[in-house]
Amino acid sequence: MTTASETLFTKVKEGTVTSPKGFEAGGFHAGLKRKRKDLGWIKSNVPAAAAGVFTLNTFQAPPLKVTKESLSGGLLQGIIVNSGNANAFTGEKGLKDAYKMRKSFADVMNLKESQTAVTSTGVIGEYLPMHDICKGIKQIPDYKETTSGSDFAEAIVTTDTTTKEIAVTCEIDGKMITIGGAAKGSGMIKPNMATMLAFVTTDAFVETAALQTALSTVTDRTYNMITVDGETSTNDMVLLLANGQAENNPLSPNHNDWETFLHSLEYVCQQLAKMIAKDGEGATKLVEVHVKGAETTNGAKAIAKSIVGSSLVKTAIYGTDANWGRIVCAIGYSGESVQEESLSISLGEIKVVDYGITTKFSEEEAKAYLENENIHIYVDLHNGDKEATAWGCDLTYDYVRINASYRT
Amino acid sequence: MTTASETLFTKVKEGTVTSPKGFEAGGFHAGLKRKRKDLGWIKSNVPAAAAGVFTLNTFQAPPLKVTKESLSGGLLQGIIVNSGNANAFTGEKGLKDAYKMRKSFADVMNLKESQTAVTSTGVIGEYLPMHDICKGIKQIPDYKETTSGSDFAEAIVTTDTTTKEIAVTCEIDGKMITIGGAAKGSGMIKPNMATMLAFVTTDAFVETAALQTALSTVTDRTYNMITVDGETSTNDMVLLLANGQAENNPLSPNHNDWETFLHSLEYVCQQLAKMIAKDGEGATKLVEVHVKGAETTNGAKAIAKSIVGSSLVKTAIYGTDANWGRIVCAIGYSGESVQEESLSISLGEIKVVDYGITTKFSEEEAKAYLENENIHIYVDLHNGDKEATAWGCDLTYDYVRINASYRT
Repeated sequence: MTTASETLFTKVKEGTVTSPKGFEAGGFHAGLKRKRKDLGWIKSNVPAAAAGVFTLNTFQAPPLKVTKESLSGGLLQGIIVNSGNANAFTGEKGLKDAYKMRKSFADVMNLKESQTAVTSTGVIGEYLPMHDICKGIKQIPDYKETTSGSDFAEAIVTTDTTTKEIAVTCEIDGKMITIGGAAKGSGMIKPNMATMLAFVTTDAFVETAALQTALSTVTDRTYNMITVDGETSTNDMVLLLANGQAENNPLSPNHNDWETFLHSLEYVCQQLAKMIAKDGEGATKLVEVHVKGAETTNGAKAIAKSIVGSSLVKTAIYGTDANWGRIVCAIGYSGESVQEESLSISLGEIKVVDYGITTKFSEEEAKAYLENENIHIYVDLHNGDKEATAWGCDLTYDYVRINASYRT
Repeated sequence: MTTASETLFTKVKEGTVTSPKGFEAGGFHAGLKRKRKDLGWIKSNVPAAAAGVFTLNTFQAPPLKVTKESLSGGLLQGIIVNSGNANAFTGEKGLKDAYKMRKSFADVMNLKESQTAVTSTGVIGEYLPMHDICKGIKQIPDYKETTSGSDFAEAIVTTDTTTKEIAVTCEIDGKMITIGGAAKGSGMIKPNMATMLAFVTTDAFVETAALQTALSTVTDRTYNMITVDGETSTNDMVLLLANGQAENNPLSPNHNDWETFLHSLEYVCQQLAKMIAKDGEGATKLVEVHVKGAETTNGAKAIAKSIVGSSLVKTAIYGTDANWGRIVCAIGYSGESVQEESLSISLGEIKVVDYGITTKFSEEEAKAYLENENIHIYVDLHNGDKEATAWGCDLTYDYVRINASYRT
């Protein structure tokens, strides 16, 4: 449905944040988690035009405040990330720690503090173990030769079961440019302006204002269209760095290849968003809800998000129960006005409601379809030409297990 | 916190919808469920002033449409309820069935159709088995002598594990009046204008307009402050019948004892709401969230509902994990602006956040507190004098189990 056209770009094999020219990245274990990698970094060889989107949670964590300050200059050259501790709801001390973490990384990497971003993810309400963090950051030069973008992707995860990386190339001004990305989920995920951490790099040359426009537009259609559990976290952030090393003419909406860039960027972000949804805490299935025939795009989005966020739809999918009444119920409380007699619903290719009337579909076929790992729900409102897609996952025993004992 | 003053009224032992004078009720098995009671009815010996509140789900089920039509005359004398099938999203046929069910009951009980309410709860999207329903209704006279209000309470439940009944008496004009109620939960429960079925009866004489005002006011503070799973169903409804058999002077906001009546009504509705929350699908604990120090009542409500609806708070409580960062996160995405440095949070009597700073509370003590069946979370915003309370439950493996196999 709303997927970016895949003919405009090519996927890079084992692509990651270092696939674009002029980016290096790494990750290793610094002591915040028991064993797994917990400190990651990205560096561009020159200051890059940068854009960001941030959580709407009123308690934005200190690292977000510091990163927004850096972003106000329009350029970023480095990003330091820790997992295991969110440095959120930590007050004045937390803010000082975030500044110190930024300075420490900037010093070691010879960057300007004002061109450095700092990010944390993990438990809320505990102070960062600054001794481990600073000691770890000082070790980055020792690891530089042996570490990679994939180590970065590993270092940023928390309860994720997989790393989330991708890169694509496309042609701008006859030059190949590359866009890479890495992200983490996988709980406290709900559509509301950048609902997790994602880092996107590109060697394209893009005007700063255009870059922010592109990121905001694409975020609304990708990251903001996923939900795992309806929780908008305190630390969500997406950063996009464009270092211009591909030497194309500066991209902006006036450039002939702007749409190519935008589609390629959307594809990268959409794939990362889908990886996050699929790897939602405890999830066994990726659920894609496609709504069309809506009067407005916002209406289509609201309905798609309402369905994909419904605990009853999620448990029914987990239980392979074609209980379409729950889909109807979720559409009904989405806040959008929908006519019962014009509503059609399909599970994959199996139509279950046709213009408001239940079809005589085969429960066995529907059950068999719901055994798949990738479930598509199609909704047609027959009331216009606007559409939207949202992504989520099923709700399982493991979501409860993971979250009943997260800290212990 | 927002509880009604208990000195104004007395609880009736084994109270139910037939505790007020002039009401009879019953319930029995008519064949919609395998074995359990599934058809219930209430009748007043005279037409009663009536008020109702209805779900905001856009797909209001046919029985709600028929009942609203009856209510438009301001009087109800009888209510017929089936469980096991919601008669929702059933289109024209569903509407005809609802009318037929109303007529069938009105005929058997010698009521006017226009003074009869009809209600259904259960699976969405299936047509009512009208043969069983009509046959069942015709049997009501046979059961009349041997059935009771408690049978009614049994007949209206679905996945509920307990029936939910209560009655209180209070003094109006020196006369004892009684208010009784019965309700059902227990999934698709989310605060948004009458989020389940509840039936409240009273022998007080109340002016019709005042009765609707009282019900709307009380619903906003009770039924609309509970959530089980964030799902606003297609069939939610609260009905209140006042048949005047206590022979007090007509109650309205100008009457000296109006507050007594309102408090007593609120207590009945609050207790029913708490019973629903406590018996939420799969729940092992009742969670009460008390927010005070807010600038506005709506702000306090939004924060209380955000906390009590958070899947991460609910799983943490199930896991007896004092992960207060999740409470902070839920406050943060409530949509209300809150100052970090003025926020205090307690779990029962254990303060965990004091003016924005984590206390050094004992994790063991907090864990022990969370083993209780009734958990209180206190939030003080120190920003005003408004307050609100919301009720919910924990999120457990059993919620997933129940809902992964509801229809099968």
